[in-house]
Amino acid sequence: MATLVVHDPAPSPLEDAQNIRKAVEGWGTNEKGLIAILGHRNAAQRKSIRLAYEEHYHEDLIKRLEHELSGDFEKAMYRWILDPRERDAVLANVALRHALPDYRVLIEIACVYSPDELLAVKRAYQCRYKRSLEEDVASHTSGDFRKACTKISSTLLFALVSTYRYDGIEINEHLAISESKILHELIDKKAFSDDELIRILSTRSKEQLNATFNRYKDDHKTSATKSLLGDPADEFLAALRTVIRCISSPMKYFEKVLRNALSHPGTDEDALTRVIVTHAGKDLKEIKEIYYKRNNVTLDNAVAKDTSGDYKVFLLALLGNEGH
Amino acid sequence: MATLVVHDPAPSPLEDAQNIRKAVEGWGTNEKGLIAILGHRNAAQRKSIRLAYEEHYHEDLIKRLEHELSGDFEKAMYRWILDPRERDAVLANVALRHALPDYRVLIEIACVYSPDELLAVKRAYQCRYKRSLEEDVASHTSGDFRKACTKISSTLLFALVSTYRYDGIEINEHLAISESKILHELIDKKAFSDDELIRILSTRSKEQLNATFNRYKDDHKTSATKSLLGDPADEFLAALRTVIRCISSPMKYFEKVLRNALSHPGTDEDALTRVIVTHAGKDLKEIKEIYYKRNNVTLDNAVAKDTSGDYKVFLLALLGNEGH
Repeated sequence: MATLVVHDPAPSPLEDAQNIRKAVEGWGTNEKGLIAILGHRNAAQRKSIRLAYEEHYHEDLIKRLEHELSGDFEKAMYRWILDPRERDAVLANVALRHALPDYRVLIEIACVYSPDELLAVKRAYQCRYKRSLEEDVASHTSGDFRKACTKISSTLLFALVSTYRYDGIEINEHLAISESKILHELIDKKAFSDDELIRILSTRSKEQLNATFNRYKDDHKTSATKSLLGDPADEFLAALRTVIRCISSPMKYFEKVLRNALSHPGTDEDALTRVIVTHAGKDLKEIKEIYYKRNNVTLDNAVAKDTSGDYKVFLLALLGNEGH
Repeated sequence: MATLVVHDPAPSPLEDAQNIRKAVEGWGTNEKGLIAILGHRNAAQRKSIRLAYEEHYHEDLIKRLEHELSGDFEKAMYRWILDPRERDAVLANVALRHALPDYRVLIEIACVYSPDELLAVKRAYQCRYKRSLEEDVASHTSGDFRKACTKISSTLLFALVSTYRYDGIEINEHLAISESKILHELIDKKAFSDDELIRILSTRSKEQLNATFNRYKDDHKTSATKSLLGDPADEFLAALRTVIRCISSPMKYFEKVLRNALSHPGTDEDALTRVIVTHAGKDLKEIKEIYYKRNNVTLDNAVAKDTSGDYKVFLLALLGNEGH
């Protein structure tokens, strides 16, 4: 369930646009006023507000906000105001432009979403960048200047983002047995980058993979993820674990991303913003519950402790916690 | 333009279904009667006839025809009566089940069709086989029992069928220059299976690739396809040439498929049927014109000479030549 608290009834999009205009015009910006409006509108409402604002003021609201806001708050608001699939496209593009592409973002999009949601992200990506997500993944992560390790990650990432997986519930039990055996043999001899391993993880349906992972647990008394623990600096191993986690328990995976983002000195604001902004409107409540169970502290408290200013106020609003 | 001659006005789907029933029931089948009906209906009409037949006789028309017909005529009629995208899914599946997968069929689907048409084929494939095209391509073409050469083809085929290419008309001229240079360098040192070569061919938009191929011609006074000529037994080289031909001149490519199918002693009925059945309803006229220019004989005459019986009558009907 969502943590986002949508005001009902909400003002008309034009009224919202006019109030946003008041908040951004003149000297100084009324950030709290912006949060009070945009932090309580769902994706469809935010889209209508953008359209109403553009129509009424002949100005792109997103550009205006970029101009008025700054820092982590600006980033969070920018991501929030975008259409969900457009936001994913931006997140993917930003991830690819890192010196070392942030594979987590790409794996989340490729493995947590349904095949049709992934397709919608690819369409949004093409619409925005006039290129395909696949060609950017392939070209940003390849080339001689990359280490061999990154080249393998590239093969994995490309296969993950490009495949249009089967989305049905049918499971082939024989395949689960044979492919869990293949996975175990390859992991056992540390052949992590073997084509077969990448083929199985990137092309089988998620239902099928979950059957395979369960079979793995039954036969080997440990999970595939645990078998893939190793050198913490090995990015490719980490990517493989991320793939399995995103497919088998996405909510637990996102709890872990939040935990890592908040538990180190020096908060990882990018990850924190990403998870909260992308999940506030759908399933952040479940993630919050898992977070509380795992950490004995509420996510709201952890966020409040590690953030400050308008950024903090905004994240807490999205977390459904106004009175903090 | 299509060569298919659709009767206008056509009888109602139920009337057609009833006449088909008359043609298949009792002793012996009236093949000419079937051709006179189904050889003159477009895809939407054939679909309506299938539905009307099923509703009226509680029997699957396709199954009935499979039972009544045989040989090349049965195969051609079976492919013809299917929905175009369902037919492509069947063609792809049959191609994959060959001892050595018929890469041409897969490359045609991946490279001639628009990204959204390819997606529609993938959806039809999933609907019919409860698996993705990608996983079948990856699993049918991989494994230790395959030669290294086939393994490379597998990488290429997988990348081709899985990518959702950008379909816009924008061209990046700098990219065309740099990637035509990469292609030339790799081809020059015979590094045909290099990741970069596969990456470029499988991920760039078709408009972009055509700009790259044109640049190649301008800079090197020969086409990329010609540069890729070599050992005729090298299947991987042939696959690369097929990719480039399917992207740059699909009509000329199909003329060549027909020419090869008809020019050898022992006609390649599978290829002949495939091209005629899949193009009769849209662009077979253009292919026929190219065929005539190249061979100084009409396609109709060549087909009439190399085929016989109901199969011949049916192909000629689809070619728009009844009076042969």
